[in-house]
Amino acid sequence: MTPTNMEHIKKLFIMPNSADKFHEFGNELLDLLHSFFTEKGGIHSSIQLGDLEKIFSNTEMPSKPQRLTEVLYEIKTKVIAHSVKVGNPYYIGHMTSAIPYFIILLEMIIAALNQNQVKIETAKASTFLEREFIAWMHRLIYQLPNKFYKKNIQSKDIALGNMVVDGTMANLTALLVARNKAFPETKDFGGVRFEGIHEAYKHYGYDRSVIFVSKRGHYSLDKVGRILGIGGNNVIKIPIDSNNKMDTKILEARCDEIEKANMAGGPRTKIIAIVGIAGTTETGNIDDLEEIGRIADKYGAHFHVDAAWGGSLLLVDKYRDMFKGIEKSDSVTIDAHKLLYAPPSLGMIYFRDGSDAKHLMHTSNYIIRKDSFDIGRFSVEGSRPFSSLKAWATIKIIGRNGFKLIFDHAFELTSSLKKIIVEHDNFEAMNEPELFIFNYRFIPKEVHEKIKVLRDRVSSAWANGECGKEVEKDAEELEKMNIVLNDLNIELHKSIREEDESFVSRTMFDIPKYFYQNCVILRAITINPLTTEGILNEIIEHQNELGMKIFKKHFARKFKKFKI
Amino acid sequence: MTPTNMEHIKKLFIMPNSADKFHEFGNELLDLLHSFFTEKGGIHSSIQLGDLEKIFSNTEMPSKPQRLTEVLYEIKTKVIAHSVKVGNPYYIGHMTSAIPYFIILLEMIIAALNQNQVKIETAKASTFLEREFIAWMHRLIYQLPNKFYKKNIQSKDIALGNMVVDGTMANLTALLVARNKAFPETKDFGGVRFEGIHEAYKHYGYDRSVIFVSKRGHYSLDKVGRILGIGGNNVIKIPIDSNNKMDTKILEARCDEIEKANMAGGPRTKIIAIVGIAGTTETGNIDDLEEIGRIADKYGAHFHVDAAWGGSLLLVDKYRDMFKGIEKSDSVTIDAHKLLYAPPSLGMIYFRDGSDAKHLMHTSNYIIRKDSFDIGRFSVEGSRPFSSLKAWATIKIIGRNGFKLIFDHAFELTSSLKKIIVEHDNFEAMNEPELFIFNYRFIPKEVHEKIKVLRDRVSSAWANGECGKEVEKDAEELEKMNIVLNDLNIELHKSIREEDESFVSRTMFDIPKYFYQNCVILRAITINPLTTEGILNEIIEHQNELGMKIFKKHFARKFKKFKI
Repeated sequence: MTPTNMEHIKKLFIMPNSADKFHEFGNELLDLLHSFFTEKGGIHSSIQLGDLEKIFSNTEMPSKPQRLTEVLYEIKTKVIAHSVKVGNPYYIGHMTSAIPYFIILLEMIIAALNQNQVKIETAKASTFLEREFIAWMHRLIYQLPNKFYKKNIQSKDIALGNMVVDGTMANLTALLVARNKAFPETKDFGGVRFEGIHEAYKHYGYDRSVIFVSKRGHYSLDKVGRILGIGGNNVIKIPIDSNNKMDTKILEARCDEIEKANMAGGPRTKIIAIVGIAGTTETGNIDDLEEIGRIADKYGAHFHVDAAWGGSLLLVDKYRDMFKGIEKSDSVTIDAHKLLYAPPSLGMIYFRDGSDAKHLMHTSNYIIRKDSFDIGRFSVEGSRPFSSLKAWATIKIIGRNGFKLIFDHAFELTSSLKKIIVEHDNFEAMNEPELFIFNYRFIPKEVHEKIKVLRDRVSSAWANGECGKEVEKDAEELEKMNIVLNDLNIELHKSIREEDESFVSRTMFDIPKYFYQNCVILRAITINPLTTEGILNEIIEHQNELGMKIFKKHFARKFKKFKI
Repeated sequence: MTPTNMEHIKKLFIMPNSADKFHEFGNELLDLLHSFFTEKGGIHSSIQLGDLEKIFSNTEMPSKPQRLTEVLYEIKTKVIAHSVKVGNPYYIGHMTSAIPYFIILLEMIIAALNQNQVKIETAKASTFLEREFIAWMHRLIYQLPNKFYKKNIQSKDIALGNMVVDGTMANLTALLVARNKAFPETKDFGGVRFEGIHEAYKHYGYDRSVIFVSKRGHYSLDKVGRILGIGGNNVIKIPIDSNNKMDTKILEARCDEIEKANMAGGPRTKIIAIVGIAGTTETGNIDDLEEIGRIADKYGAHFHVDAAWGGSLLLVDKYRDMFKGIEKSDSVTIDAHKLLYAPPSLGMIYFRDGSDAKHLMHTSNYIIRKDSFDIGRFSVEGSRPFSSLKAWATIKIIGRNGFKLIFDHAFELTSSLKKIIVEHDNFEAMNEPELFIFNYRFIPKEVHEKIKVLRDRVSSAWANGECGKEVEKDAEELEKMNIVLNDLNIELHKSIREEDESFVSRTMFDIPKYFYQNCVILRAITINPLTTEGILNEIIEHQNELGMKIFKKHFARKFKKFKI
C-alpha cells in the first residue's frame, strides 16, 4: 500500500483493524532480526566507507511514497547488512555490547504508547514508574533510611534524579546545578542562572571559577565547561598516580593554592566542583572517592562522581567497597546504556539532596505548571521518551542476583585476559584493570626484553636523582622505541579491522609506567555475557599471528637499530 | 525462565536459537499493543494519581529475578492500562499525537542493531544514512544548489546539522554556536569556549550579551540562556503584535538603542542572536522571518529560527511561503517528534554554513578521532541512538506527497474548528490560527455580549486618547469579567478531564485583543490524521454542555453583578 490518498494515510496511523496485518509485518521483522543475530561472519560488513557514501548519497528527499515492504527490504540490505555487530562475543572493543533481547520488545511498547515524559498530561503511569526507578537507584548510591524513600519516592516537589539522554547530559546537569549553587540568589542579586556569569563574578568578587577532575576525566567534562560559560580551560586536570587514579595530594595542594591566593586579596577563583571518576573511560579505574569527598567538603565545592561506566556495580553488594565515598557525593552520573545493558542511550543523574533540583526548576503555563506532578519541571531536556521502562524492567527481569552473575562473569573475563596477556611472550599489560577495561599492546619478546632493561635503568637512575648524559640517552632511546611500537600497534589494529574476526579498540594516552609518554594501546572491554575465556584466547592468539607477520615484514629491522 | 545461573542469563542476551521463542513473545506483545489501540474507552485511565503513587511505591529494588511473562503482565496492567492515549483522535490537546504504526517496527530494528551514533566503530551504515537524511532536510530549508549537496552530503569535515534529543537541545546547540561565534578566538585570546564568558567580555570589551526572541518564545530559550552562562534575564522578550508575532519595529528599536549605547562609550552589550519563531508553542503563529533576518544581519547577530513546531511543513512546497526568510537564517530547529510524526523525542538542528560546526568540534583519542568519520565530533551529546532511521524511513514511506495530504487535512481541521467556534454562541476564538493550534474559550452568549460592549468602549476610548474615570471603570470591569471567565474555563477544563471523552489543553497568557490581559484559554492542536470534522463538532458540543452546566450552577450569579 502506498499512501496516495488520505484513506491510505489513515491506515498507516492506526493499528490495522485486524491484528493480522500488524502480525504479518511484525513476524517478518522478527525473522529478519533473528537472522541478523544468528548469522555467522564478520563483525563489520566488508563494505568500504566510500561505497557506503555512495549508497547514501541521494541528495534529494523522495516525493513519492514507497511501499512499507520495499522500505523494510532497503533497510535490510543497506542498513542492517552494514551495521556493526556490537553484540558479537568477539566484539570486545567498546562499552557498547550485547543487550538482552527482551529490550527489543520493550522498545515496541515504548513507541506504541508514545508517552512524553515532560508532563503528566502525556505521561501518566510512566511518570510514577520513572520516579520509582529513580528512588531505587538513589537508594543504591546514598543508602538513606527507608523512611526517607517512603516519604520521597513519589514526592513531586523534589527530584532525586533525572533520566537524561546520556552521560554528557548527566554531567551537564550535575555541573549546572553546581555552578548555580556556587553563585546563588541573594537579596540584591538574582543568581547566576538569571544574571549570568559575568554579573555573578562581580557580585561575589570572583574572577574565575574552576572544576577539578583527573587527567582521565571523560571528554564530556570539557564540553560541559565550554557550554556552561566557565570556559573549557577552567576544567582543570589533576595528574594521576601509577594506577590512573587522581593524585589527591596534588588536588589538595591546588585547592590550597587557590584558597591562599583568594585570601591574599588578588583575583579570586571559585572552586565550583570536584569530580571523582568511578570507572575511567580509558582504563576503568576508580578514584579515591572518599578522599576526594573530604577535599571537596574542606573547600566547599560540589562533589560530583562520574560513575557513567561503573555506577551500575552498586547493584551488587560485594562490589560496593570499590565505590567507598560515593555516598558522600552531591551528585552521581550513571549510564544505563553501559552496565545496565540498555541500548544507547540512557543517562541518569542522581542528587543526594533532592531539593538541589530547585537550581534547575522552571515552569511554564501551558505545560509543567508549578504545582503539577510534571517531571519536566526539573530537567534540562524538554520532550523525552519513556526510556525508564527499559531500565525498570531489566532490573525486574534480571534482578540484583542476576546482575551479580553478569558482573562476576565480567570480572572473570578481565582476569583471564590479563593472565593471557601477562603470560604471553609478545604482549605487555598497560594498566591494572579494575572495571572490565584492560589495556595492552603487542610487543615481540625481543623488543620487550630490550625495553624492560631501558625502562629499569632510567627508572632507577631517576629514582636516585641521576640526570647525566647517559640517563638522558637511555630515556631518549626508550621514547623512540615506544614511538616505533606505537606505529606497530596502529598497523596491527588496522589489520585486526581488516580481518574482522574480532574487535578491540585502540587509543593513545600517557602511560604511567613509561613516565607518562603517550603510548598506543589496545583496549579490551570484556562485559558481554556471551564472551568466554576460550574466545579471549582465540582473539589474542589471532592478534599475535597478525602482529608477528607485521613485525617481521616492516618492523623487525627498525628495532634492530636500538642498541642497549 | 528466571536467571538463576549464568546459562540462563546468557539466554536472555542472545536471540533464541530457534526463532520460535522470540516470535512467541513478539506475537504476545503485538496482540497486547493491538488491543491497547483498538480498545474503546477514556483517553486517560480513570485511576487517581494517588493510587498510581501507591502502585509505584516499592522503595527497594528487587533482588530476585522475575519471569519475563510476569513482567510483561505487570507492564500491561500497571503501565499500559494507565497510559494516556495520545493517539486517540479525540485527544487534540498537545503536540504529541498519533504515530504511524510502522514506527513500532522501526524501533525494534533500532534496538536490535544497538548502534551508537557517536562513532563509526559502533555505527557504520547508520552514520551515512544519518548524513543523507540531514542533507535532505538542509536542502528543504536552504535550497542550495544540487552541486553543494553532491559535494557535502557525506563530507566528514562539516556538519549540515545534528540529530539531537529534542528541541531544547537543538536550541541549545544553535545558541551555543552563536555565543561561540560572537566571541571567537584571536591571536591573544582562546575564544569564549575555552576562556569563558568573563574573559570574553574583558577581551572584547563587553559587559553583557543578549538574545532576542518574542514573548511567545519557547521556555527552552530561557533555559538555554541560563545554561550558557549569559543569564536567563538576558534572553529578552520582544512584545508581539495582535497576531502573536514579534513586533519587529520594537526589535529594531531595541537593537538600535543597544548600538547607540555601545557607541556612547558606556557599558557595552553584544547581541549574540535573534530568534524567529516558526510556529509558536502556544498559538502556532509564525514570525516575519524575512524582516527578522534583515535586522539580525544589520546588527551582526546570529539569526536562529525555532521551527520546532512548524519546520516540517517545508516538506510541502505550497506551504513554503509561510516561512519566507528561513533560508537566510544561520540555524534552524525542527522537531521530528512533532510534525514528522516520530515518537518523542527527536530534535534536529541545521546550520546554513556546515563549517559553523567547528565551533562545536571536539575530539578524543579513544573515539571521535580528529580525522575520523565520527559524527560525534560535532555534537553536544555523546552516546546517541540511531533515531534518524525513523525519520528517514517515514519520509520514504509517506513521501512528500503523503505529507501534503496529512498537512492539508490538518489545515482543514483547524479551519473547521475555528468555524465551529466562531459560529457557536457560547465560545470565543482567542487567536488567528496559522499552524494547527487554535485557542478559544467558553463564554456564554449573555456574557459574551456584555464583554464585547465593554471591550469596544475601552478600545475606542483608548484609541481616541481618552483616559478619564469612565474608561478606567470600564477597563476595570472588563478585567474583572475576564478573571471570572478564567475561573469558569479552569472549572470547565477540570470537568473535561474528569469526563475523559476528549482532551484539549489549557493555558493562560496575555491576549492581544484584551489589551494583553492574562486569559485562560483552551488550546486545540488538530494534527491527528484520524481526527475528523465530526469529531471536532462532538468535542465542542460536549464542552458546551459541560460549560453550561458549570455556568448555571456556579457562575451565572457572579456575572449578574457586572452592569454595563
